[in-house]
Amino acid sequence: GYALWEGIQGYMDPLFKKHKVENAYFPLFIPEKLLNLEKEHVHGFAPHMAVVTIAGGEELKERLVVRPTSETIMYEMYKQWTQSYRDLPILINQWNNVVRWEKRTYLFLRTSEFLWQEGHCAHATHEESLAMVHWALDTYIDTYQNFMSLYGIAGVKSESEKFAGAKQTFTYEMLMPDGKALQGCTSHDLGQNFAKVFKMIFLGKSGKEEIPWQTSWGLSTRSIGALIMVHGDDHGLVLPPKLASIQVVLIPIYSQKVNSKILKATLIKLQKNLGNFQTYIDDSDDQSVGWKFNDWELKGTPLRLEVGAEELKTKKIKLVRRDTGEKLYISLKSLKKVVAQTLNDIQKNLFKKSRAFLKANTRDAISYIDFKKIMETKRGFIRAFWCENSVCEKAIKDETKASTRCLPLDAKEEKGKCIYCGKKAIHRWIFALA
Amino acid sequence: GYALWEGIQGYMDPLFKKHKVENAYFPLFIPEKLLNLEKEHVHGFAPHMAVVTIAGGEELKERLVVRPTSETIMYEMYKQWTQSYRDLPILINQWNNVVRWEKRTYLFLRTSEFLWQEGHCAHATHEESLAMVHWALDTYIDTYQNFMSLYGIAGVKSESEKFAGAKQTFTYEMLMPDGKALQGCTSHDLGQNFAKVFKMIFLGKSGKEEIPWQTSWGLSTRSIGALIMVHGDDHGLVLPPKLASIQVVLIPIYSQKVNSKILKATLIKLQKNLGNFQTYIDDSDDQSVGWKFNDWELKGTPLRLEVGAEELKTKKIKLVRRDTGEKLYISLKSLKKVVAQTLNDIQKNLFKKSRAFLKANTRDAISYIDFKKIMETKRGFIRAFWCENSVCEKAIKDETKASTRCLPLDAKEEKGKCIYCGKKAIHRWIFALA
Repeated sequence: GYALWEGIQGYMDPLFKKHKVENAYFPLFIPEKLLNLEKEHVHGFAPHMAVVTIAGGEELKERLVVRPTSETIMYEMYKQWTQSYRDLPILINQWNNVVRWEKRTYLFLRTSEFLWQEGHCAHATHEESLAMVHWALDTYIDTYQNFMSLYGIAGVKSESEKFAGAKQTFTYEMLMPDGKALQGCTSHDLGQNFAKVFKMIFLGKSGKEEIPWQTSWGLSTRSIGALIMVHGDDHGLVLPPKLASIQVVLIPIYSQKVNSKILKATLIKLQKNLGNFQTYIDDSDDQSVGWKFNDWELKGTPLRLEVGAEELKTKKIKLVRRDTGEKLYISLKSLKKVVAQTLNDIQKNLFKKSRAFLKANTRDAISYIDFKKIMETKRGFIRAFWCENSVCEKAIKDETKASTRCLPLDAKEEKGKCIYCGKKAIHRWIFALA
Repeated sequence: GYALWEGIQGYMDPLFKKHKVENAYFPLFIPEKLLNLEKEHVHGFAPHMAVVTIAGGEELKERLVVRPTSETIMYEMYKQWTQSYRDLPILINQWNNVVRWEKRTYLFLRTSEFLWQEGHCAHATHEESLAMVHWALDTYIDTYQNFMSLYGIAGVKSESEKFAGAKQTFTYEMLMPDGKALQGCTSHDLGQNFAKVFKMIFLGKSGKEEIPWQTSWGLSTRSIGALIMVHGDDHGLVLPPKLASIQVVLIPIYSQKVNSKILKATLIKLQKNLGNFQTYIDDSDDQSVGWKFNDWELKGTPLRLEVGAEELKTKKIKLVRRDTGEKLYISLKSLKKVVAQTLNDIQKNLFKKSRAFLKANTRDAISYIDFKKIMETKRGFIRAFWCENSVCEKAIKDETKASTRCLPLDAKEEKGKCIYCGKKAIHRWIFALA
């Protein structure tokens, strides 16, 4: 699990740095008075707070909240750093742990503590901060699609589903095999909400006092939950090759028919030949070959390469694809090329499968009866007109459990009627069970 | 600061992986009952604990301690993972944050929360676990000496100064400019202490039940404090080139005498020429050249390259060393070579300086009067015979504030008398003010 997170960090961190976002670290503990400054924010997080009341053997005069997110502790510093337009933009990211207390937890998906990255920026203009919000969202879409092979729908959250304290929240919504939606990340346009309560002011180029525009954006280890559910099968994990810390496992099959020294030498030669890839020779004597096959399938390693008596005799190597189970017999000469092609193929195949699944399970509801029927039977994503009034949104959720997931970025304005109240609606939103 | 920590991680993490240590992540919160299992351990950490008593809006039935270190939460799992000798060794490292409450904090050196790595291993034999303890110590010595240019003395801690719950603790002790010692890391032989209280048992190769041998080892952001104090000067930080995220800063000096387009093009050409190094062109218009010089000196950037009218005319580039202030005028042709040599030189020079300082400030005390005199005047490291009885150790500390830092690994057995009680002593220990 942690190697997957290291893989995701390894992909995203250089993208952050290229965009001049600097990594930093801020305290784990937030004094309660700071958290209380932004009313919507504290209201949203209060039910999930873990609170330190005793430290160094004494009861604390001011209680400390274990960070559920770091806006408040960071912006208290941003305020002090921002005097002039020259001090902007501030582009900072943290890779850290946060705590949002849950009574019932679920591995990777809903844990009281989780790992994530949280980007926090302050800009001189709203135009700049909006560009940052979209850059972050684009970076997440890139990571999910090109690195993790996970298709989803990018869009904007409704007023009631947006981040506590934000002006607007953007998201990437994926569909799990059980027909439930998973929010893959968020990128928030915080407007000037936090800047105002933290009394952030800077001297603009014109010489006038101005208020900065802020953004925050995050992606967490929940993404690993999506990866496991979407790509995994009954044999275990299935990893996209770009994310796999071991891409090809080489397994020797010792028997009476082979000279073990020759077999060992062949494996080392093969590993050298595959030097461009992440490879591992599982040469341990502790477990049987069958046990090893199962174990590497469980771990999701994209390719398994078997070498035994048969392979030494025919000079053809057996290659097994984790995603399709397909077996290939490859000559030594073309091995390197075929491995490269096959890994590339697996990466693309997993993405295509995930996209096909989402598309096949996204349904238009033309009436509320239709909507309810889909929720009772197939679930998945439902595309439906909604008047954007939170009263209808809440009623739909109460009656069907489906919440608005997002308004897709590419949604066009249309003439329609709200699926619930029948009043004018101009957009089809995506609904699903969270 | 965080870029320095990323640099240290970037150096150490591949060394861990090469030694087959895997990174993982364990929970931040430790249930109190787990921490209480090892008596010495909890006794050592109790005064520094931060305790969560409220979570999710309710008072917790069992209080949660924010991890001061992760032995107890990790070994509870290790116990479940260890059935047979096949399950050993377990070699796991965490890069995380820990909390040890401090009433008075000091940036990087004594903070209530800090970042570190903590390695935790379980082995089948004491021989193997001792090898691990020394591998970790060697890795730290390598990091300090070859990467951070910081000289120190590696050795073993006394009984009273060792880690709470360990059998033996190894350390790397450095000397700060104010004559105080700084403990740079620790590597603990935990023996079977934790294994016993956690009831870890495995079936050995012989078929008998055995108890594993454990180690833990850590290096924290305190190392950055040492770096700042030892290398820094009145102008700010001085960074060893290997650790500097920017090794060469290129600063254009615009004036009436230069064509700004030609100057800009020259800078870009120079940057390309220095493609092997981490470079940055500070081309902003917001600040004066003098301000920039000061700012990059403050940040400790090893080399500053200046290009203005003079340089364009003479075709010689001005290069300024951060560590010595030396100015070099280099032809374009030999620039790349000189930069490589000079960076290498700075790396070595800083190490030599730090070694020379420690050696010049390590003094033999031949009597207790002598010992006290050194502590009252020069401080630094004191080498003195000690009988290894904790009563003398405590008396020396109470009377002079000097504690035992370590018994150097290369200390030879000698015939001597304890500096305090006059009884037989076979080793000269290192003493200093912590």
